[in-house]
Amino acid sequence: MLSISSNPTGSSSSTTKVLTGNNMNPRVRKAEYAVRGELAIRSEKIKVELANGGSFPFQRVVGCNIGNPQALDQKPITFFRQVASLVEYSDLLKEENRELALKLYASDAIDRAKLLLANIGSVGAYSHSQGIPLIRENVARFISDRDGFPADPSKIFLTQGASAGVQLTLQMIVEHPDVGIMIPIPQYPLYTATLAVLDAKPVPYYLDEAKAWGLTTEELQRSYDEAAKSGVDTRALVIINPGNPTGQCLSEENMREIIEFCRKNRVILLADEVYQTNIYQPEQRPFHSFKKVLKSMGPQYEGFEMISYHSISKGMIGECGRRGGYFECEGLDQSIMDEIYKISSISLCPNVQGQIMVDLMVNPPKKGDPSYALYKQEYDDIYFSLIKRAKKLEDMFNNLEGCTCNSADGAMYLFPQIRLSKKAIAAAEHAGKAPDQFYCMALLEATGVCMVAGSGFGQVEGTAHFRSTFLPQPELFDEFCAGITQFHAGFMDKYRD
Amino acid sequence: MLSISSNPTGSSSSTTKVLTGNNMNPRVRKAEYAVRGELAIRSEKIKVELANGGSFPFQRVVGCNIGNPQALDQKPITFFRQVASLVEYSDLLKEENRELALKLYASDAIDRAKLLLANIGSVGAYSHSQGIPLIRENVARFISDRDGFPADPSKIFLTQGASAGVQLTLQMIVEHPDVGIMIPIPQYPLYTATLAVLDAKPVPYYLDEAKAWGLTTEELQRSYDEAAKSGVDTRALVIINPGNPTGQCLSEENMREIIEFCRKNRVILLADEVYQTNIYQPEQRPFHSFKKVLKSMGPQYEGFEMISYHSISKGMIGECGRRGGYFECEGLDQSIMDEIYKISSISLCPNVQGQIMVDLMVNPPKKGDPSYALYKQEYDDIYFSLIKRAKKLEDMFNNLEGCTCNSADGAMYLFPQIRLSKKAIAAAEHAGKAPDQFYCMALLEATGVCMVAGSGFGQVEGTAHFRSTFLPQPELFDEFCAGITQFHAGFMDKYRD
Repeated sequence: MLSISSNPTGSSSSTTKVLTGNNMNPRVRKAEYAVRGELAIRSEKIKVELANGGSFPFQRVVGCNIGNPQALDQKPITFFRQVASLVEYSDLLKEENRELALKLYASDAIDRAKLLLANIGSVGAYSHSQGIPLIRENVARFISDRDGFPADPSKIFLTQGASAGVQLTLQMIVEHPDVGIMIPIPQYPLYTATLAVLDAKPVPYYLDEAKAWGLTTEELQRSYDEAAKSGVDTRALVIINPGNPTGQCLSEENMREIIEFCRKNRVILLADEVYQTNIYQPEQRPFHSFKKVLKSMGPQYEGFEMISYHSISKGMIGECGRRGGYFECEGLDQSIMDEIYKISSISLCPNVQGQIMVDLMVNPPKKGDPSYALYKQEYDDIYFSLIKRAKKLEDMFNNLEGCTCNSADGAMYLFPQIRLSKKAIAAAEHAGKAPDQFYCMALLEATGVCMVAGSGFGQVEGTAHFRSTFLPQPELFDEFCAGITQFHAGFMDKYRD
Repeated sequence: MLSISSNPTGSSSSTTKVLTGNNMNPRVRKAEYAVRGELAIRSEKIKVELANGGSFPFQRVVGCNIGNPQALDQKPITFFRQVASLVEYSDLLKEENRELALKLYASDAIDRAKLLLANIGSVGAYSHSQGIPLIRENVARFISDRDGFPADPSKIFLTQGASAGVQLTLQMIVEHPDVGIMIPIPQYPLYTATLAVLDAKPVPYYLDEAKAWGLTTEELQRSYDEAAKSGVDTRALVIINPGNPTGQCLSEENMREIIEFCRKNRVILLADEVYQTNIYQPEQRPFHSFKKVLKSMGPQYEGFEMISYHSISKGMIGECGRRGGYFECEGLDQSIMDEIYKISSISLCPNVQGQIMVDLMVNPPKKGDPSYALYKQEYDDIYFSLIKRAKKLEDMFNNLEGCTCNSADGAMYLFPQIRLSKKAIAAAEHAGKAPDQFYCMALLEATGVCMVAGSGFGQVEGTAHFRSTFLPQPELFDEFCAGITQFHAGFMDKYRD
């Protein structure tokens, strides 16, 4: 045995650990996830130091590295939280407590909690591994109302967030190390991280920054063909729509071309649609689901294989910490559906609290319901504020020296390009960092603003970008923009060639 | 490309799916998880048919296949649920609502909810990927109070249940397909399923049924050496204590031997201790944590590598559906700790509702607190009822023809052996099933009781067992036992040689 012969004395002192960076799972070691990488870790440390009286040139850390609205004080939707509160403590639903409960909770929240508990039993029990049947029925109704085409609850799996769904389904597909999965560049790094762990080949296709992060099937075909030439067996195509980190929103025509590309090349379409309600130009750039576009394309696309993902973490809900979401399977072989069930059952079930929030997402208060007016107001307040903040931040970036930024059709991010001086690039190299990582680290240390460098998402060689959410609090937003502007001017001056 | 050449027309009709059982991930296909396998799937179908007026020789399905207490009407702990309810809807904590809230919630539940929210912010925000710092501090205090040795919050990771922790940490260890992980036989099938997906080698060691499911280091060494001879590089040893499905509880002396075995053979100890409070013979067979035993063994064990797992799903809490737990790392290399953090961060964070229940588990009401009396009463009611039901079911099994059953020192299960007739074995073979699977399926169809066949856990070749929880409702327990007894007599008669 290797492990014995290398250490015949059997000592377990710290210099001869059984498990080390050198003999651990190399696929895990290879995985990178910049959204919570070096910059985020440093920002967490600064937070702790600030709390302990440490001195920094700023009062607070502003986490723009991750779409985490409630961490930046976005108010949760009251109706959703009332239901979440009621299902936890069913004494509140007893008839003898009704009068009291009605002073604290809306009557339709009480009704909804009762209905859910009648179906679920206890929120502390494992549920069906695929998700609570009633909630899957409600998801199916939501999808069919959205798309105008039927959806089947037996094809829907509730998950602990969209990330868990993506990880689970990619795991089904990767047969061997030459299996390729097409991913956009720039991409959300969940994809590259998961493919590294699964030992599969990322097959990159590039979004065209000069054309508002446009996606062409010519580029898809180039990417596919190039991978094929090097022996990669491409099995699936990931589309993030609206885009992350890029925010673009696909046209129906473009989506039809993408579906045709998949059919022709025999790849499964994986549609990450978690930002489907974060749409900021609803007239010019509305959201279309791939399911709807597919179903409108006629019978020759019958049996087309697709998985689409949704989440409670984004939209105007922002219930990230609860970990809830779902995916819908379209056209998958029954044997694969059975295997997805099996692998879900090993983890027993998605957490019930997350499942309940999925129910609320797909079935919010309706006109005429007691909670509707408040729901609508809270929803709209968040929505219109996001539009305003997106535009403000975009304008700010476009006014920075050497910086250009496409506008966001959707999602929660901007992904500006910065052109750094030779001197700055040399300083970054000296510090052992990618230029954009160097810039973002300087920004964090100077302002407390934590963004993610473009190198974490992938970008055209030789360019530099960063991703920022536009989620900081409305009342702090001008201060936030001013801080970045001031830092940027100083940085550019310091490293002027 | 294989996928093209096999289907040059590019058609995607159902006979030529891109993804099939034949080209999916073979490691996933290989995984088996009997706890929610054929029997559980059939029982779910019967439930639906019963609800739709289907006719069966019983009124209800009784799920004894899985430790899911609240699905069988175990009442949740009131204090825990009050806090869970309050943190969801922070309006309840406002001063102007205090008077009202106090009519529905205990004052210490309100205080705890305030404290948690002051630390967490919103329960809808992503938390620290390792888990909320305050809660990790409380876990560390719980461990050090339990063991009398210090624990370090930075070595604790909160998880979405113990299963998620086991999967994550096994994933770290499996470097290549010849890596072996020692597992007990019988075992909880999470382990074989996870090792199949990770493409690692299970290295089985046998528990001795004749000696109350005893575990000897001679057997551990035999297992290790045999694996080594066939080229397996064993890296870790899984111990489930108290045992699942076997319920045995290890003595301190036995645990010292196991630790010494690990040190000598250079394997990491993975201690699954999720049933640590399900202890039914506390005088003769108390629970000792591996952490405590290790720390009492002196300085030559400094740096010993171990991971131990705990959960909110078991004990008297039974909050399975919430998915919460933690693992504590002992002696791991810092590079490994960093990698565990990175891989956790890709999934963003464990769900916050599960984290909060971990806090409540490790920090329940104390003597003198307003909620203490009720908490103590609820806890004891469940505990003493479990002891009673365990004994009743054990006696019932031991009174069945051809059936013997060790008593449970701990956990939630009994794992009786049944000796089936040649005729029954032939009938099982004819039906294409393992004999115990055949028996359990007949039991389900006749009585509505769903158990899991021993073949799903592993057992000595040629023996037959099944696992049953003793969780059915106290008021239905006699009826439940009578149903099994009657079925068994009929089955034995039907297949008498």
